[in-house]
Amino acid sequence: MTLTLSQRSAHYTSSPIRELLKLTEQPGMISLAGGLPAAESFPVQSLRAACAEVLDTQAQGALQYGPSEGIAPLREWVAAHLRAQGIPAQLDEVLITNGSQQGLDLVGRVLIDPASTVLVERPTYLGALQAFAPYGPCFADLDDDAEGALPTLDDAAHRDARMVYLQPNFRNPTGQTMSTARRAQWAQTLRGRPIALVEDNPYGDLWFDQPPPPPLAAQLPGQSILLGSFSKVLSPGLRLGYIHAPAEVIAKMTLARQAADLQTSSLTQRLVLKVLERGVLEAQLPRIRALYRGQRDAMLAALERHMPDSVRWETPQGGMFIWLSLPEGADATALLPLALARKVAYVPGAAFYAAGTAPRNTLRLSYATAMPEQIDTAIAHLGGVFSRALSRSHHDASVLAA
Amino acid sequence: MTLTLSQRSAHYTSSPIRELLKLTEQPGMISLAGGLPAAESFPVQSLRAACAEVLDTQAQGALQYGPSEGIAPLREWVAAHLRAQGIPAQLDEVLITNGSQQGLDLVGRVLIDPASTVLVERPTYLGALQAFAPYGPCFADLDDDAEGALPTLDDAAHRDARMVYLQPNFRNPTGQTMSTARRAQWAQTLRGRPIALVEDNPYGDLWFDQPPPPPLAAQLPGQSILLGSFSKVLSPGLRLGYIHAPAEVIAKMTLARQAADLQTSSLTQRLVLKVLERGVLEAQLPRIRALYRGQRDAMLAALERHMPDSVRWETPQGGMFIWLSLPEGADATALLPLALARKVAYVPGAAFYAAGTAPRNTLRLSYATAMPEQIDTAIAHLGGVFSRALSRSHHDASVLAA
Repeated sequence: MTLTLSQRSAHYTSSPIRELLKLTEQPGMISLAGGLPAAESFPVQSLRAACAEVLDTQAQGALQYGPSEGIAPLREWVAAHLRAQGIPAQLDEVLITNGSQQGLDLVGRVLIDPASTVLVERPTYLGALQAFAPYGPCFADLDDDAEGALPTLDDAAHRDARMVYLQPNFRNPTGQTMSTARRAQWAQTLRGRPIALVEDNPYGDLWFDQPPPPPLAAQLPGQSILLGSFSKVLSPGLRLGYIHAPAEVIAKMTLARQAADLQTSSLTQRLVLKVLERGVLEAQLPRIRALYRGQRDAMLAALERHMPDSVRWETPQGGMFIWLSLPEGADATALLPLALARKVAYVPGAAFYAAGTAPRNTLRLSYATAMPEQIDTAIAHLGGVFSRALSRSHHDASVLAA
Repeated sequence: MTLTLSQRSAHYTSSPIRELLKLTEQPGMISLAGGLPAAESFPVQSLRAACAEVLDTQAQGALQYGPSEGIAPLREWVAAHLRAQGIPAQLDEVLITNGSQQGLDLVGRVLIDPASTVLVERPTYLGALQAFAPYGPCFADLDDDAEGALPTLDDAAHRDARMVYLQPNFRNPTGQTMSTARRAQWAQTLRGRPIALVEDNPYGDLWFDQPPPPPLAAQLPGQSILLGSFSKVLSPGLRLGYIHAPAEVIAKMTLARQAADLQTSSLTQRLVLKVLERGVLEAQLPRIRALYRGQRDAMLAALERHMPDSVRWETPQGGMFIWLSLPEGADATALLPLALARKVAYVPGAAFYAAGTAPRNTLRLSYATAMPEQIDTAIAHLGGVFSRALSRSHHDASVLAA
C-alpha cells in the first residue's frame, strides 16, 4: 500500500549538513562540516545542579503543561537581555521556542504565503531556506559587498517583498558581519515599507575582539522579528531559543505553537532560567569566546600553512565559520568525496544559495567543533586534496567541473 | 507599521481549552476543563536521579545536537513497546516527537494538501483539528454508534479521503472506546485503499478494568500511522512522544523535523530512556490507573448525586474524560460563564466538531486533574448551575439558546 503524500513533502529534502553529520561518526573523521558547539563549552555541572534544584522545588510546574508562549520569568529575562542591546522589548513581545530553527518555522507559518517574495543574503543560512521553503515563497537574492548585503530594492518584486531575512552577525556560512553604516542604510530603506525585517542572531555573543554593532532590529521597532538562541552559548541539545516580534505577531505565533507542538518543555525552560539567574552565561561567554578565538586562529594558521595560493578566505571576527573560495572552475561538491576519503568533512558552498546559479567553488569550514591539533591535521589533508586537484586541473579541466 | 501576515495565519485561532487554562489560575477555581495529568502521578524522584546520572555519564550526548529522528535506543524501546502490542515495528519506522501534538503537525505536513479530505470522528480531538487545519483539508465527519465510528465510505469524497483520523481508545472528548469488531470492520474497509489510518493513542495505557482491544494499526501494516505519548504516563511538561509509520513516511517526517525544529531535546530523550530502562513505567501505570479510576468513580458518583435527571453521560473505561449531554436546546457554551462564576471550568462540546452543525448541548469534563473532594464540590456547583438553567428553560427557552 503506497500512501499519497502531500505536495509539500517534495520540499522536504535532505540537508547536506545533516547527512554529513552521520559521516562524522566514522572513526578518525574530523568534521569541519556541522556547526556543532565545542562540547568543552557545555556548563554540565551548572545544569546538573539546576536540574536537581528545579525538581526539588518546582517539580509540579516543571513536569506539567505550561503556557505556549513560554514561562513568564524566562520571557522577562529575554526581554531584559534585549533591552540591554537597545531593543525596547516587552513581555508580550517574546515567545520561547525549541531553538532558533523553530523560530524560523514560525516566521514561515505566520508571514509566508505561496509566491511571497523573501529577500535573502547570498549566500544565506541553509536552515532558513529549509524552514521557509515548504511555505512556497519566491526567494530573491541580495547582492553584497564588503559591508554586507546591499539594501537596494531594485525591482518591483523586491519592493513587494513580504520580508527580508538577514544574519548581520558572523553570518552562517560566510562569517561576515554587517557594518554599522550598512545597518543604518537597511533601517532607512525598510522604514515605512510593509516589509518585515527578520534578523537571525544565533552567533552575536561569540565575538572575539569587540562586540558586533547593535542589532538592526533596534532601529526598526514594530517592524522587526529577532531570533535568538541558547544553542551556541549554553547547549544545542537543550533546544531553547526565542523570538522577539510585535505583540500581534507573537500572538499569532503563539497560536501556531499550539497547533505545532503546544509548548517548549517546561523542565528545560526552568533549567535554563535557573542557570541564567545564577550568572552562568556571564561566566560562559569569556570562556567560549577564548575557546573559539583560539580555534579560529588555529584554522587561519593552518590555512596559511597548507592551502595552495589560489585558495582565498576572509578572517571572521566571531561566530563559527570560515568561507573558502577555490579558483573559478573548481567544484567543491565534486571534491568532497576526495576530502571524506582523507577523513575530513566540510560543507560545499552551493547548499547556501537560494536562487539563481550557485557558485560551485566555495565551501564552509567550521572551527567550532574540532580542537586546534585536529584542525591542523584536517586542513593539511584538505590542502593536499585541493592542491592535487587544482594542479591536475591545468591538465584536465573536466575533473573540476565533473 | 502593520506587517502582512500569511493567509494561513487565519487558521491560527485561539483554543478554548488553552484560554480556559488561564482561568484555572484564579484562586479557588476547580478546573474540569484541561486534560492535565494529576501532578501526583509525576515520577519526580526517578527523573531527578536520571538527570544526575545522564549528566554524569553522557553529558556530551545529552547537550549536543543529535539525530532528527531521535536517539536510536529510545526509538528501539518504542519499537519493542509496539511489537508487544502486535505491531511489527522496526527502528526505521519510529520518530521521536515533542509530544503527540507535534506528531499531528507532522501528519499534516506530510499527508495533507489543500482540499484533501480528512475523515474524523464526531466529535473528535480539538488539538488534531487545530494541527491539521493550517494545511487546508476538508474535514468530513464520521457517524458513530455505541461501538465507535462507522466505517462507511458512503460518498465519493469519503472514498477519496487522504486519511482517517481515529482515537480508538478512550476518545478525547467522549471517553468512548472502539469495539474489537468495529476495529476489524475498519481494517477491512481500509485495506487496499490509498487512505492512511492515523491512529492517535495517548490514553491507551490508562485503562481501568481491562486493557482496550489491540491497536487498529496492527491490522493495517504499511498503511498506518500510530501516534503515542509519554505525556499521560510520565509527564506532559517533558514534551515527549513518538510516531510509528511506514519507513518512507518516517523519512519524509524526519526531513520535515529538520525544517521545523531540528530534533527533540537530546537531554529529555536520555532522561526518559533512563527512567524507562529502570522500569519506572511499569511502576507508574498501576498507580496512575488506580488514581484515575478513583477520580472517575468520584465524578460518576457526584454526577449521580448532583445532576438533574435530564443530563446524560456514559461511563468511560479509561482515559481522562466524561462527556455530558444536556437536554436538546440547552447551550453548554452559553452556560459556561455561569459555571465559571461558581469557580468551575469545563469545555463546551461544540469545540470538538470538525464540520457541519455542532450540537450545543454537550460538554467535556476531565476527572484527571482534580482530587475526589474537589470533584464532588465542582460537580455540585455545576449541577446547581444546570438545574437552575434547565428549570428556567421551561419558562424561557431563549435563555438556553442565547
